[in-house]
Amino acid sequence: MTPFKLSDELLEQIEQLIEERNNSTLLQILNELHYADIAEIINELNLEEATYLIKLLDSEKTSDTLTELDDDVRERILKNLSAQEIADELLELDTDDAADIIAELSEERKKEVISHIEDKEHAKDIVELLRYDENSAGGLMAKELVKVNENWNVLTCVKEMRLQAEHVTRVHSIYVVDDDEKLKGRLSLKDLLTTSTKTHIRDVYIPKVDYVIVNDKAEDVARVMSKYDLEAIPVVDESGRLVGRITIDDIVDVIREEAEKDYQLAAGITQDVEADDNVWKLTKARLPWLLIGMFGGLGAASIIEGFETAMEKYVVLLIFVPLIQSTAGNVGIQSSAIVVQGLANGTIKGKIFHRLLKEFVLGLINAIGISSIVFLISHFGFHTPYLISVTICVALITVIINAALIGTFIPIFLDKRGMDPAVSTGPFITTSNDILGVFIYFLIAKLILGF
Amino acid sequence: MTPFKLSDELLEQIEQLIEERNNSTLLQILNELHYADIAEIINELNLEEATYLIKLLDSEKTSDTLTELDDDVRERILKNLSAQEIADELLELDTDDAADIIAELSEERKKEVISHIEDKEHAKDIVELLRYDENSAGGLMAKELVKVNENWNVLTCVKEMRLQAEHVTRVHSIYVVDDDEKLKGRLSLKDLLTTSTKTHIRDVYIPKVDYVIVNDKAEDVARVMSKYDLEAIPVVDESGRLVGRITIDDIVDVIREEAEKDYQLAAGITQDVEADDNVWKLTKARLPWLLIGMFGGLGAASIIEGFETAMEKYVVLLIFVPLIQSTAGNVGIQSSAIVVQGLANGTIKGKIFHRLLKEFVLGLINAIGISSIVFLISHFGFHTPYLISVTICVALITVIINAALIGTFIPIFLDKRGMDPAVSTGPFITTSNDILGVFIYFLIAKLILGF
Repeated sequence: MTPFKLSDELLEQIEQLIEERNNSTLLQILNELHYADIAEIINELNLEEATYLIKLLDSEKTSDTLTELDDDVRERILKNLSAQEIADELLELDTDDAADIIAELSEERKKEVISHIEDKEHAKDIVELLRYDENSAGGLMAKELVKVNENWNVLTCVKEMRLQAEHVTRVHSIYVVDDDEKLKGRLSLKDLLTTSTKTHIRDVYIPKVDYVIVNDKAEDVARVMSKYDLEAIPVVDESGRLVGRITIDDIVDVIREEAEKDYQLAAGITQDVEADDNVWKLTKARLPWLLIGMFGGLGAASIIEGFETAMEKYVVLLIFVPLIQSTAGNVGIQSSAIVVQGLANGTIKGKIFHRLLKEFVLGLINAIGISSIVFLISHFGFHTPYLISVTICVALITVIINAALIGTFIPIFLDKRGMDPAVSTGPFITTSNDILGVFIYFLIAKLILGF
Repeated sequence: MTPFKLSDELLEQIEQLIEERNNSTLLQILNELHYADIAEIINELNLEEATYLIKLLDSEKTSDTLTELDDDVRERILKNLSAQEIADELLELDTDDAADIIAELSEERKKEVISHIEDKEHAKDIVELLRYDENSAGGLMAKELVKVNENWNVLTCVKEMRLQAEHVTRVHSIYVVDDDEKLKGRLSLKDLLTTSTKTHIRDVYIPKVDYVIVNDKAEDVARVMSKYDLEAIPVVDESGRLVGRITIDDIVDVIREEAEKDYQLAAGITQDVEADDNVWKLTKARLPWLLIGMFGGLGAASIIEGFETAMEKYVVLLIFVPLIQSTAGNVGIQSSAIVVQGLANGTIKGKIFHRLLKEFVLGLINAIGISSIVFLISHFGFHTPYLISVTICVALITVIINAALIGTFIPIFLDKRGMDPAVSTGPFITTSNDILGVFIYFLIAKLILGF
């Protein structure tokens, strides 16, 4: 399949057609496209054009397109639609997508839209979903699912399923409940295809079923589903009643966002931003770390200034500050990144002490390798005096081991305290290694050179 | 569900039971566990214990467990099994998982194992899958799928499906092919549940179906599946014949690994490593960037040394080198991380020039903010002479804008050249910004202070 790629030509053509109000050609083009592609187009249009297209499309396509739009684009378009129009779109969507869209509206507008939803059952389900935190199992789940009572037989079951399946886009598993709606187990479609119609469900269902609880964290749900290769997982409330199900496509988004967030934190970007956000939003996301880094740099400056004698007698020491500093920074980032990933995917087990010991050994190996090369180059290349070369190398070894230990310890410490360890990969590690690295360097110089 | 967590107690208990050869208790414990959890346990055992458990488990559980083991653990265990034993395990697995396992064996062992696979059809499918690159659609797909001929009616179709479904763990879509095995469309399970048995497939199938071609890259498959929320996608060969299908659980792994790889590259780790890898593997993954960083630091040192007069007359300039350097580094990482993510998720569109202009504006805003603060602190805090404070600020502004532009340009350039832009987020950007930052700083000092 040649994947859809939004071209400037297509965009111009569509803008032209909107201006001409050439609805038939527009519909001809758009009906060929997937709603995710239409959303890409609409993201690029101005508000008036975007609203025009949204109103032109048939209701099913509109509602699906709405779910795929950028948040800010959708917000503006929804403002241009009446409560009745929004309610009609929500009717076409699964409850989880509907709840995601309606969650962005003001409290007042929310109530108004909900009162306009024709299907009262659907409206009730959406209201229930709005109660849950968006980063919890409840916030991810949809109310649409296929469930059967353990006391039915396969024939009743198939009949009921036909009815329920009308509302369910994708049938993954058939969940089995008792008379109190408590989750008992599951039934695979495959089993249904191969079992006689008179059999009772209670005699054929699989009692072992993975499930999550409404208040479980989204990332824990993601971990369970991806570890056990689940395509859908039922959600139960505290008393074990089946209240919804989560499908893998929602989890794919959680995994991607989680990974992107960690990556951004490591790169010193404090908010969830995208390349096409505006300059102001990007500045707000980037300036904080730059400021932390700036104070780190000024801190290093005042440390160097504090070693006055060094500056007077051994100005050559200053030449190697960038080397010390960038090495400390690099080692720190490496160590913390490995620990953060290890914590995220569960490969970090056992005692903190063993982990630190391993980093110590690792740091020592790297440190000896690097400082040997540096010694040769500084001695023969830069012709620095022997004792100064020794100083640089001892400092490098100390700084590398120190950075490795800090880079390992801080994320584990944050994790134990219930904080997100990824925070430590960016600003904290780098800045503290910067300052500490410079300080250690001059301290060692003072000891060796005796100023 | 309380997720499984491997405790030291459980591990000790299992080791104890293995030593006592207490098979009944062992099986009692293991049969309660998911194969992914059993794999976690086996990863921690020594080879002898691991092999003992693998041979103890029933064949279906063994084969599933094998797919979840760490690569190196699996490799060692497979060495302890006979070709016949391996072949028996492969019979229990879907072709894609079987091919993944067998791919790790030596060519000779591969042939031996394949010749021992009882089901010749299964063996043929596995051999076919071994032909494809593991990072392509062909490398991800399984041969197991449910397909029906467009000329059948629904009744024949259901009968055939019952047969085919025996071999397919999860039925997602029913693919429709013509007499030449060319993919024509799909049929949803829901449609089958609601259509009369005499209808011909050609009258009810949906002709619109997303598909990928065997040689498409794994990450492109991941992008298509996650953009269009697909749970499975059919794979066709160059002439359009249906040859396999890819399911979302394999894609989840691709997405996770892709994100982890980008993150590691950004952190300066050159190989795919995990926290529990051995010290030697970790060193090999980490030393290369440290060496690049080291040469960067030495480069900066020789630049500083080159500005001899500055060192003699304006030694105070040297104090602020860490500030200049870390600011340049931070800005560069931020810019490149945003561009790399934008390239990965498709939010970077339009001309390079606009992107660079945006970064220029962004850099200027950050630069003015930071240099104002630095001016005040250096002037009033450090009491640096007026002209030197000016020098530092002009240098900061230049260096920030320069780092932002380089950080933006390099990933886009690499991407256009067909290289992985994520490579640029780590070593290259940081090191080049380090050296260039220091150079710009002293050059501006020379211009302003006139030495």
